[in-house]
Amino acid sequence: MRNQFDKQMDELNIQLIRMGTMCEETIAGVTKSLFEGNVILAREKKQNAREIDRLERDIEQLCMKLLLHQQPVAGDLRQISAALRMITDMERIGDQAEDIAELVILLNGSQIKGAELIDDMALAAVKMVTDSVEAFVRKDIALAENVILEYDIINNFFDRMKNTVVELIIKQYADAESALDFLMIAKYLERIGGHAVNIAEWIIYAMTGKHKEGQNDMVCRR
Amino acid sequence: MRNQFDKQMDELNIQLIRMGTMCEETIAGVTKSLFEGNVILAREKKQNAREIDRLERDIEQLCMKLLLHQQPVAGDLRQISAALRMITDMERIGDQAEDIAELVILLNGSQIKGAELIDDMALAAVKMVTDSVEAFVRKDIALAENVILEYDIINNFFDRMKNTVVELIIKQYADAESALDFLMIAKYLERIGGHAVNIAEWIIYAMTGKHKEGQNDMVCRR
Repeated sequence: MRNQFDKQMDELNIQLIRMGTMCEETIAGVTKSLFEGNVILAREKKQNAREIDRLERDIEQLCMKLLLHQQPVAGDLRQISAALRMITDMERIGDQAEDIAELVILLNGSQIKGAELIDDMALAAVKMVTDSVEAFVRKDIALAENVILEYDIINNFFDRMKNTVVELIIKQYADAESALDFLMIAKYLERIGGHAVNIAEWIIYAMTGKHKEGQNDMVCRR
Repeated sequence: MRNQFDKQMDELNIQLIRMGTMCEETIAGVTKSLFEGNVILAREKKQNAREIDRLERDIEQLCMKLLLHQQPVAGDLRQISAALRMITDMERIGDQAEDIAELVILLNGSQIKGAELIDDMALAAVKMVTDSVEAFVRKDIALAENVILEYDIINNFFDRMKNTVVELIIKQYADAESALDFLMIAKYLERIGGHAVNIAEWIIYAMTGKHKEGQNDMVCRR
């Protein structure tokens, strides 16, 4: 029984890493498609969101199997509970990447001045997701805490992008609709950063039993 | 054992309805605070998001208890699994309402022309959430399906709001930054509509075992 349990827990970790990696790759891909104005690449990356959804379902099924048939206790239970929350955030990251891909298709190659901010922002977002996966793999609390701090950077980028867009529209340096589409892309990247923060918080919870929002050992408590 | 199980399942339903109602009330409240430029009310409603988080934790704990100690089968398992997904969407609705409240505080009473679109949009968003809770209570598949269709309305509102904001900025009828804040509020309302769609899909899954994304009886399938 225990042996089977360990095997399934290992499988859970492998699948979580796979899902996280797929998220990173998707964000990087859609950003590339934006700067290349590459609608074909955007369509291709949109498919990744489907794959991320499929991984979410597989992992959820695995978690349910573990909960129902293996009666996990304390630490393991926390791992499974955190995994169930992490996959929701990763799935949402996939959705946001898909939303960006749709805007890339809509923009159909249109570019705006100042869009390099988006590039920096996407790099920051990918880094946050990469670091959270890394923190999970290495059980590195300090790295997870760092992901939480990094959110300020991405949020700051969003504010700068907002100012840029206002200026572009007022001075008519850009087609206003395209400028707003770029602003929405910035918003989606900021949200991706937010989800990476959530993932980092769940990693800390899985390791320490403490969650920022006071969700301390929720499952074990009676 | 079975009796205890039924009692806990009833409790689960009551808590889900409570959480849904709290979401409706929060969206309606923050929208009111926006139109009244009422920063105090916005701050008050921001607190609701904390309460929604607390309900999410309580419900999750209840679901985990049911999974671990009651070994539910087929239909009941599906109910619990759907409940776990629904609370994530409701919690996100609370987050979006909190984001709106923060913008209301930032706007500090600033208004823009054409903002009545936001009012219509908020009404549509509240209706979607109300209908999804109602569909859950009455086990009404047709109503849940209707919520999914209603998304087009709210998405269309967002596009109209985008056009309005572009015009306001170009013609300098509004302070550009405030106009973009209103656009972000529209975006959050559109996202709330998206979460209501997710909830409706989980309700249909709980009742039929079929999920739009192919998540058919994921837990029971072996």
